[in-house]
Amino acid sequence: MQIKAIQIAQWVNGTIIRGEEDTLITGVNSVEDAKEGDLIFIRDKKYEPLLTKTLASAVLLGKDPSITLPEKLVCILVKNPEISFIQVLQKLVISQPSVPKGIHPTAIIGENVQLGKDCAIGPFVFIGKDTQIGENSIIFPNVYIGENCLLGNNTCIFPNVTIRENTTIGSQCVIHSGVCIGTDGFGFVFNGTEWIKVPQIGRVVIGDNVEIGSNTCIDRATLGETRIGKGTKIDNLVQIGHNVKIGENCAIAATTGIAGSAVIGNGVRIGAGSGINGHITIGNNVTIGAWSGVVKSLEDGVIVSGFPAVDHNRAKRILVAQQYVPELLKRVKDLETKIQKIENNCV
Amino acid sequence: MQIKAIQIAQWVNGTIIRGEEDTLITGVNSVEDAKEGDLIFIRDKKYEPLLTKTLASAVLLGKDPSITLPEKLVCILVKNPEISFIQVLQKLVISQPSVPKGIHPTAIIGENVQLGKDCAIGPFVFIGKDTQIGENSIIFPNVYIGENCLLGNNTCIFPNVTIRENTTIGSQCVIHSGVCIGTDGFGFVFNGTEWIKVPQIGRVVIGDNVEIGSNTCIDRATLGETRIGKGTKIDNLVQIGHNVKIGENCAIAATTGIAGSAVIGNGVRIGAGSGINGHITIGNNVTIGAWSGVVKSLEDGVIVSGFPAVDHNRAKRILVAQQYVPELLKRVKDLETKIQKIENNCV
Amino acid sequence: MQIKAIQIAQWVNGTIIRGEEDTLITGVNSVEDAKEGDLIFIRDKKYEPLLTKTLASAVLLGKDPSITLPEKLVCILVKNPEISFIQVLQKLVISQPSVPKGIHPTAIIGENVQLGKDCAIGPFVFIGKDTQIGENSIIFPNVYIGENCLLGNNTCIFPNVTIRENTTIGSQCVIHSGVCIGTDGFGFVFNGTEWIKVPQIGRVVIGDNVEIGSNTCIDRATLGETRIGKGTKIDNLVQIGHNVKIGENCAIAATTGIAGSAVIGNGVRIGAGSGINGHITIGNNVTIGAWSGVVKSLEDGVIVSGFPAVDHNRAKRILVAQQYVPELLKRVKDLETKIQKIENNCV
Repeated sequence: MQIKAIQIAQWVNGTIIRGEEDTLITGVNSVEDAKEGDLIFIRDKKYEPLLTKTLASAVLLGKDPSITLPEKLVCILVKNPEISFIQVLQKLVISQPSVPKGIHPTAIIGENVQLGKDCAIGPFVFIGKDTQIGENSIIFPNVYIGENCLLGNNTCIFPNVTIRENTTIGSQCVIHSGVCIGTDGFGFVFNGTEWIKVPQIGRVVIGDNVEIGSNTCIDRATLGETRIGKGTKIDNLVQIGHNVKIGENCAIAATTGIAGSAVIGNGVRIGAGSGINGHITIGNNVTIGAWSGVVKSLEDGVIVSGFPAVDHNRAKRILVAQQYVPELLKRVKDLETKIQKIENNCV
Repeated sequence: MQIKAIQIAQWVNGTIIRGEEDTLITGVNSVEDAKEGDLIFIRDKKYEPLLTKTLASAVLLGKDPSITLPEKLVCILVKNPEISFIQVLQKLVISQPSVPKGIHPTAIIGENVQLGKDCAIGPFVFIGKDTQIGENSIIFPNVYIGENCLLGNNTCIFPNVTIRENTTIGSQCVIHSGVCIGTDGFGFVFNGTEWIKVPQIGRVVIGDNVEIGSNTCIDRATLGETRIGKGTKIDNLVQIGHNVKIGENCAIAATTGIAGSAVIGNGVRIGAGSGINGHITIGNNVTIGAWSGVVKSLEDGVIVSGFPAVDHNRAKRILVAQQYVPELLKRVKDLETKIQKIENNCV
Repeated sequence: MQIKAIQIAQWVNGTIIRGEEDTLITGVNSVEDAKEGDLIFIRDKKYEPLLTKTLASAVLLGKDPSITLPEKLVCILVKNPEISFIQVLQKLVISQPSVPKGIHPTAIIGENVQLGKDCAIGPFVFIGKDTQIGENSIIFPNVYIGENCLLGNNTCIFPNVTIRENTTIGSQCVIHSGVCIGTDGFGFVFNGTEWIKVPQIGRVVIGDNVEIGSNTCIDRATLGETRIGKGTKIDNLVQIGHNVKIGENCAIAATTGIAGSAVIGNGVRIGAGSGINGHITIGNNVTIGAWSGVVKSLEDGVIVSGFPAVDHNRAKRILVAQQYVPELLKRVKDLETKIQKIENNCV
């Protein structure tokens, strides 16, 4: 990569407010690790001090900084430095991992499978009968797709993924390696002697623009559908139980578990390692802190954390206060002794 | 599906106590999502109010409800509505996902492998030498089974599962996609400079009627056996360490971790997200609430939750009380001030 | 196996201090499960009482025990019984699971792939172009290795592993089944309407002698590298976020999550089920108890536990004290009543 600063400014609709527009940019990096030739960005004013010693050659920023900067650093003023940086990254990603177009001779394609134009089906892929896959979609090696599935256009399924029968996945989705979609829900009834399996005859429906991280599991519904709304992003090793409904544009961080039949609104953000009870409803635009345990339904827009999850500010107070319980025990003991003395004296 | 209510009543040994026995049932559903033509069930009296507005055409229930019901709703009286509903579901599951009988030409079958009658071995399956698989078992695509394994009859292994050498799995088992059985236990000894691997030369033995959820891991024993008793059901993303012994008819919910050499009795139920310490013993019929941390052995029949897990009722009191620690700090401070004043006055 | 006790003593440089040196040893076992013919070991004096009733035929120990032992038990005195036992196990592991040397005819090997001497590439393996694999490395069936990867010598990749493009893995590494290395980091920016993906153009670099447990996920860096230092051992179902740097000789137990850009020193031990915040720094030789939540950076050598993780002794006191909060509430209420009375009397 060898691009002039002015070229980058043009890509992102930015203005060079300091430095030489012909400066050669040879890489992109984080502020901390930047070396000569690198383009970096800073999210907002708070991070400006990080610039004073950077070796980077150019920076995307939202305001003209009022501090002394390295002499040669090119400053490119943009509206949203983070989004602009992403735009630059997108221009630079020239070699996405891919699979050659067409069907690899080792792939097994069932009867009546319909593949859209320019699909790429890799080696050792199995696609069950009656499944449809849209245009430009990419199926990496060792993927299993059951029968009667429907995948949209431009969707990418990474290696070793299992998609069970009757699943629907939208367009522009990314399903990372090792994901299991459509596994039977965990439904058993104890008859007094043994667990009887509840047949899991529902399915999974995933909207457009969904991304699902490695080794995440999304169970099929017992009856009806487990649903993930369009634009929702799910991290690695997340468990999504049967009949869960997740709205649009949510973000769910790694190792979170969502129990069966929970309903989650749009724009919900869930921190890593959290647990959501089954059969509860989380409103729109709720934010749930990392390692929270949500045991009750939540109204739209609330910010919660802790176990059990409560208002985030309250949760922080509780967490801090709980650190002082050993001293509290001692103080109460002292008070009891003092009161005893006073009572003895007063009587 | 088009079945008369009377037919369903006959399937489940039920009695139609209200409504028209020729009513056509065209689907099954949950109470909440039911539409015309659907059969639903209600678990007990508590859920009766849900019936007043249902669009369903028939319901399985355990008692004649005393409330006003939709005029056309057919009521089928049965002993256990949930079990009866499952029986109906089982009748309806006509097209289980499957694999054609026989050995797919792409499968690699090792020397001296013995396959029972009517086995189905899918594409891209690898089976190591000396392994035996019972009758009617189904191995989905992309499964790896190491050498010298023993699988029973009617067992189903879903795609992308790894079963390492010397593993035994019983009959009527279901192993969902992405499961790893027989991975080396996490055994290392620090010699002062580096971690030395303890060779893991034991194995995994799984009883009949066991079901294991997607991406769950069951490690082989260091020496001897890691054991899962018959009838036990394990959900997705569960970690079972080396040398763990789990009894019969247990149910273990998702994202739970059981550390090495823990011993778990029969009929134990473990809620999601829990952790069980290594080298402890959990008695029979113990119930462990979700997100519990069990650090000590537990007697038969106890119900525990919390971290550390204690009696469930006690745990609930603790959890509630802990929410008031911020106020408690303030109240103790107030008391201290008051006592100080009293002491000053009294002296 | 049929080996004389004297032979085992010679293998481990030990001295027979009791019993008959010609005693035949026919197996190895744990103290608890040992039967006649077995060799066992005891870690230290504390476990000596376990020997009084053992059926084992020989024991590796570090001191001549002062208690009465079974008459026929052969005692082999060694410096470190655990390490000596491992040495015996290593001698006994005669049949490691393996893959025949060479390239299986079904494997797909990309252009310009370089395979070292005596590599074994199993069935249904995909190796992308320009990837290099060192001598004696073993790739089990159904593994995907993307383009431009670099694997060292004597490294073993178990079945159903996915290694994405540009990953480097050292020599003598063991990657267990279902592991996903190099998945895109979970990087999205909300633009007010939807989540915009931050292209993840970094990679993963893993040192020599690293072992990674089943279904663990290690994400590629957004920019630069996610790094695992040499000699580090990682258990099953662990999540390692983008840009995490882990030092050498660490041990990380199962179901732990390490958020993006965390930096972890050398010799760090992390208990099962823990969570480490993103963008914090854990010093060298830190020990983190099981189920801890580490939210702040930690100095070298500290031992912490709890949520939030604090000094381990302090954490134990807090955990115990927190169990008494229900009673504390009652005691404070009593104190308030008493003070009220005293105040009423005194006024």
